[in-house]
Amino acid sequence: MRNIPYIESMEDWQSGFSFHIPVKVRFSETDMFGHVNNVSPFIYFEEARIEFMKSTGLFDDKNSSTGMPIVADLQCDYHKQIYFDDNLKVYVKVDHIGKTSLDIHYMALNQNGEICLTGRGRMVYIDKESGKPVPLSESIKEKLLTT
Amino acid sequence: MRNIPYIESMEDWQSGFSFHIPVKVRFSETDMFGHVNNVSPFIYFEEARIEFMKSTGLFDDKNSSTGMPIVADLQCDYHKQIYFDDNLKVYVKVDHIGKTSLDIHYMALNQNGEICLTGRGRMVYIDKESGKPVPLSESIKEKLLTT
Amino acid sequence: MRNIPYIESMEDWQSGFSFHIPVKVRFSETDMFGHVNNVSPFIYFEEARIEFMKSTGLFDDKNSSTGMPIVADLQCDYHKQIYFDDNLKVYVKVDHIGKTSLDIHYMALNQNGEICLTGRGRMVYIDKESGKPVPLSESIKEKLLTT
Amino acid sequence: MRNIPYIESMEDWQSGFSFHIPVKVRFSETDMFGHVNNVSPFIYFEEARIEFMKSTGLFDDKNSSTGMPIVADLQCDYHKQIYFDDNLKVYVKVDHIGKTSLDIHYMALNQNGEICLTGRGRMVYIDKESGKPVPLSESIKEKLLTT
Repeated sequence: MRNIPYIESMEDWQSGFSFHIPVKVRFSETDMFGHVNNVSPFIYFEEARIEFMKSTGLFDDKNSSTGMPIVADLQCDYHKQIYFDDNLKVYVKVDHIGKTSLDIHYMALNQNGEICLTGRGRMVYIDKESGKPVPLSESIKEKLLTT
Repeated sequence: MRNIPYIESMEDWQSGFSFHIPVKVRFSETDMFGHVNNVSPFIYFEEARIEFMKSTGLFDDKNSSTGMPIVADLQCDYHKQIYFDDNLKVYVKVDHIGKTSLDIHYMALNQNGEICLTGRGRMVYIDKESGKPVPLSESIKEKLLTT
Repeated sequence: MRNIPYIESMEDWQSGFSFHIPVKVRFSETDMFGHVNNVSPFIYFEEARIEFMKSTGLFDDKNSSTGMPIVADLQCDYHKQIYFDDNLKVYVKVDHIGKTSLDIHYMALNQNGEICLTGRGRMVYIDKESGKPVPLSESIKEKLLTT
Repeated sequence: MRNIPYIESMEDWQSGFSFHIPVKVRFSETDMFGHVNNVSPFIYFEEARIEFMKSTGLFDDKNSSTGMPIVADLQCDYHKQIYFDDNLKVYVKVDHIGKTSLDIHYMALNQNGEICLTGRGRMVYIDKESGKPVPLSESIKEKLLTT
């Protein structure tokens, strides 16, 4: 496997995941070469992240005084082709929590347990009015780390 | 050309269009057979309808007391395959205005002037609070008919 | 419920369905009003149709001498708003088999058993070379009617 | 502007672009917060990349003995929110050519000339049969560098 900047040891990195969702590849996501297009993995990552956030109680947290999370960046490495009808497991974990942001990592396995995708992205908490980053509260940090 | 329930005379029907938008088929819209998938035409129709509504001044009409339009039904007939890189003209017209709804018709031509798609759909104006249909005002009707 | 051209008696029509797939609404399918956009139902119908065809053994039937099915038309009626995170059951059935084509009907229920969507569309079997319609074989008809 | 690993000097980096395509944001790409969702930028990048490859004569190069390009990784940094109806210019350039791969960079400006998106991704040329990377021919390199 090639060198991935955000993965030091693949074994350690992989073992840090536990939360995952099932994803069934849709026919409309295949391109003219019969492969899943390069855009769909970001849809899968989003689904996994939202389900993860919901499991922590942080999604739709209307009373939050600590702002809303926005995506600052996203990246994906394509390791194996994904085909129509593949049944994927898409994993998500919090890799790092900073003062106003967190780094989320992603991994997708196919039905044979092979790594098809790895990825990461940073979420920043911003104030809804000013758009400026706001510090993550201790309670949010705790929820993220114990899920 | 086969029989289409919402088209009596194709010649008359086609000549009723003037408003149209250009649509460039996206690579991600092609499927494993190299054709544009069956879902994309509804995206094209939506784009054309929104541009049409904007041209009438009825889109984003925040002060409207006559409710918001919602889609009640949509249909599309596929006449010719559409391919990646095709440059389409997607036409839209108001075919019929009722008391609380209007019927919008669609037609897409490819770069050779061939009809690839025809379609229609009904929009109903509803009250945002109650969700019940509300009558279209005379001013809305006028705007729709003179565009 | 309003009048739908392809449904005579809603009760009879609904009772004719048995095959269905689960569909989880994706966040990326919601629009700026928090509703699922008008295009996604056609993606759901396609998924249901493909799974149905696979269950009959007619999908990916490489040795077929009776041509390939293409979509001739599609339509959808929107009965109830669908929201992010709704869990739908999308039903599909063959309503009518003609000489070279078949009519497929669709219905989507939400988690409360309410009808959100109804729809239909015609598939035509065509010869891959000539593009002309070809008659459905008796074996295909049988598979379709006994699933 | 925050630190982007693949941009040393933003001024230098930005001045290296010339090829670009227009992209009109689609209504169906907005989410429930009125913003363009995080997935669409990768669709825009793909469109720009394909147009760029076509302009070099490298897209659909059927006689190529040097394999086909596949996407090895993709990343995007979100600098400014993009809204429905924004008219974007999406730029693309070859940043680096290796033995069997090339690095492509992307930038999207809105109608006010503000940078909304930056990104990059690596394409690898592989042999269609073996799936193994193949060296880029001198003629491909030349075409890429002179466009």
